Amino acid sequence: MVVVRRRLNADGKDRTAAIEYRPIGWIETPFVRADGTPIQSCYADGAEGVVVVAEEYAAGLKDIEAFDRLWLVYAIDRACAPQLTVTPYLSDEAHGIFATRSPARPNAIGISPVRLLAVEGNRIRVAGVDMLDGTPLLDIKPYVPAFDVLPAERIGWFEGRLREGVTADGRFERDGD
Amino acid sequence: MVVVRRRLNADGKDRTAAIEYRPIGWIETPFVRADGTPIQSCYADGAEGVVVVAEEYAAGLKDIEAFDRLWLVYAIDRACAPQLTVTPYLSDEAHGIFATRSPARPNAIGISPVRLLAVEGNRIRVAGVDMLDGTPLLDIKPYVPAFDVLPAERIGWFEGRLREGVTADGRFERDGD
Repeated sequence: MVVVRRRLNADGKDRTAAIEYRPIGWIETPFVRADGTPIQSCYADGAEGVVVVAEEYAAGLKDIEAFDRLWLVYAIDRACAPQLTVTPYLSDEAHGIFATRSPARPNAIGISPVRLLAVEGNRIRVAGVDMLDGTPLLDIKPYVPAFDVLPAERIGWFEGRLREGVTADGRFERDGD
Repeated sequence: MVVVRRRLNADGKDRTAAIEYRPIGWIETPFVRADGTPIQSCYADGAEGVVVVAEEYAAGLKDIEAFDRLWLVYAIDRACAPQLTVTPYLSDEAHGIFATRSPARPNAIGISPVRLLAVEGNRIRVAGVDMLDGTPLLDIKPYVPAFDVLPAERIGWFEGRLREGVTADGRFERDGD
């Protein structure tokens, strides 16, 4: 990670200076357009993909094969311009972008808890991919239920609206892709 | 999000061109040094903090008060240089960085599932903060158990090593901070 311009810290004035990341690889999936792509990993278990980690980072995969599930952190590089309020796929009303999982975020970073199938060198076969083919990969973290499974009863507007089989359409896709 | 250099896509050759993000705010916490900071939200429920969203993004918080828990996505801006293998806090052996939750990642992006206490304008009081004071905020997403709570029995080297009360030390902190 390279922090450009000033270093950001607690006593600095400009805590929002730009930060640059360099993808560590990419994700190969069956989805070339948003239309028809699963909207979440939990609805995509039948969709398999390959996480390709650039050779220079492959040593970082040591011991990863011993996990059932991984968080993929990635750049949603074909999202439309950010919108502060959106009508997401599972709703028919507008909500603040930070109260949704829509791609139209100010920083279009996605997190997906995919299921690990096999590690083959610098390639990880996974199930539950819900991102477009060629998506730039920023990070991989092990999914650890003690860390990631926490109580959350109130789920806002999602209440009563969660259902299987919903896929994306083009509403949050960048024009011209 | 601004994609610098070439656009990244499935047919492009350079899928790892740099990507620039601009923080949407910052996180105020009781922790000014890594030493003594909780290593995960689940071990930090007594630690309260404030998520400050820059005014220009505050409209994106609409309806967020109806969630019990939020994912904070942030830049670990005071992490040391990346290491491909690390000995993390809960282990005494080296593991690949992507098989750990250590901050010493090639792209030092953190995700923490904090508990929402109250929304006061553009400030969100939360519990379970495990990041340093002034940490640049990249994104907020609602925690939705249907999306985020998934089966994962195999947890690799974490098996038998999870325990309360572990806090960070300075091993992954940038020199001079």
